[in-house]
Amino acid sequence: MQELLVVKIGGNIVDDEQRLGAFLEGFALLPQPRILVHGGGKLATELAERLQLPQTMVDGRRITDRDTLKVVTMVYAGLINKTIVAGLQRHACAAIGLSGADGNTIRAHKRLAGNIDYGYAGDIDEVNGRFLAHQLQGGYIPVIAPITHDGKGQLLNTNADTIAQEIAKAMSSLFDTTLVYCFEKPGVLLDVDREDSVVRVLDRSHYQRLREEGRIFAGMIPKLDNAFSALDAGVGRVIIGQAEQLPELTTGASGTTIINKKNS
Amino acid sequence: MQELLVVKIGGNIVDDEQRLGAFLEGFALLPQPRILVHGGGKLATELAERLQLPQTMVDGRRITDRDTLKVVTMVYAGLINKTIVAGLQRHACAAIGLSGADGNTIRAHKRLAGNIDYGYAGDIDEVNGRFLAHQLQGGYIPVIAPITHDGKGQLLNTNADTIAQEIAKAMSSLFDTTLVYCFEKPGVLLDVDREDSVVRVLDRSHYQRLREEGRIFAGMIPKLDNAFSALDAGVGRVIIGQAEQLPELTTGASGTTIINKKNS
Repeated sequence: MQELLVVKIGGNIVDDEQRLGAFLEGFALLPQPRILVHGGGKLATELAERLQLPQTMVDGRRITDRDTLKVVTMVYAGLINKTIVAGLQRHACAAIGLSGADGNTIRAHKRLAGNIDYGYAGDIDEVNGRFLAHQLQGGYIPVIAPITHDGKGQLLNTNADTIAQEIAKAMSSLFDTTLVYCFEKPGVLLDVDREDSVVRVLDRSHYQRLREEGRIFAGMIPKLDNAFSALDAGVGRVIIGQAEQLPELTTGASGTTIINKKNS
Repeated sequence: MQELLVVKIGGNIVDDEQRLGAFLEGFALLPQPRILVHGGGKLATELAERLQLPQTMVDGRRITDRDTLKVVTMVYAGLINKTIVAGLQRHACAAIGLSGADGNTIRAHKRLAGNIDYGYAGDIDEVNGRFLAHQLQGGYIPVIAPITHDGKGQLLNTNADTIAQEIAKAMSSLFDTTLVYCFEKPGVLLDVDREDSVVRVLDRSHYQRLREEGRIFAGMIPKLDNAFSALDAGVGRVIIGQAEQLPELTTGASGTTIINKKNS
């Protein structure tokens, strides 16, 4: 099976021109077929503030109302997505920017949880693996903004981590898929204050043991649970580490590689 | 040679939700492989005003400065492009929204005219016909926003009429290409006040004669000169008419069809 990388970067990289530039240069140089998923960052919040849009909060969460949806569509699928694509093209990387509406890449539905209206937030129904495979076969590199659609003309705001996970799962039947989550830390740390305490390889039994011993930082637990659920759905491995070290992450020289079971 | 339609719609349609919806429904129903190019409309100007961006004018023309470029990228490649794509997907049309940076579809350079700096306005160098053909072969329908790039990481603001023309010219070696310009009038009129005075078919000698007789409305002359220059570059025919009548335009039942020479 051909290799595929699905790489997710968050707002911390997107918001920092210099770090983004360094990341894109590393991403462009990778040899594998790959898909980049990017988060939103602070730009949308800043634009909403400059436009003095009232922010609706429910249970402490900001709601994507109609005007906020316009702002995130402009910022995520417009400014950020095209800035990344132009930056990759500069390094001769044949990037193609997509929202979930383009090519029906990601169909979602408006989130409904009991009586709470979360506004235009989308939960994913289906990833169009056939469309993404068509792009990869042509040598093109999809760059995905965290905007989806419902197939009935409605755009929706969707979490980029979830998009990366669902894309990796959907592509696993066609490719030997590696999902790379870039975040602030160099990997899963045994001591949150020591960056040299990275766990190189983490399998399920090791994870259970570390959790029981209380040695996994609480904030990492949902990330790792998601990682193992991706493995259960067919993803080959999940790598967690820093965006700037992407080439080293993909070779296992840096970050934490999460697998179902170590060969012993 | 397989048929291809390149259809351009302007701001008048983009700005009007109802007219846009009617147009997209007609566009989605067409049987041919096709590419849609859309203009910008008033939204970008409105957003720039709400953000109180100072407008730089040179020789009475608004200049795309750095902040204005961000606004047009957000509005054209983000909000408008994705709204159109989601609207087409609603009608099961496999639309894929693209700026000129995506897939290196349109490479341009920053306009330089003598000592005048026009800001981030791009003049087109090359259309990537191979990339567009790859999308069409997969059954996908490119929807192009009027934003290009220079291949060095810089996005540029580019006229949508010119984009449509250059795409049609570039695709002519691969497809029997029809370029459709949608505008306010139902076609080339012999009497500007009578909408029933549409010239059905216009060839070069007929055009010359009408011009000499002063029967072509001055505003139409640059459009028609561009149309004949597209024919010279290999485009099969250029059709001018109203967006709402797109299906009728493509069959010749409405609008003006411009060709090099009538069979007599």
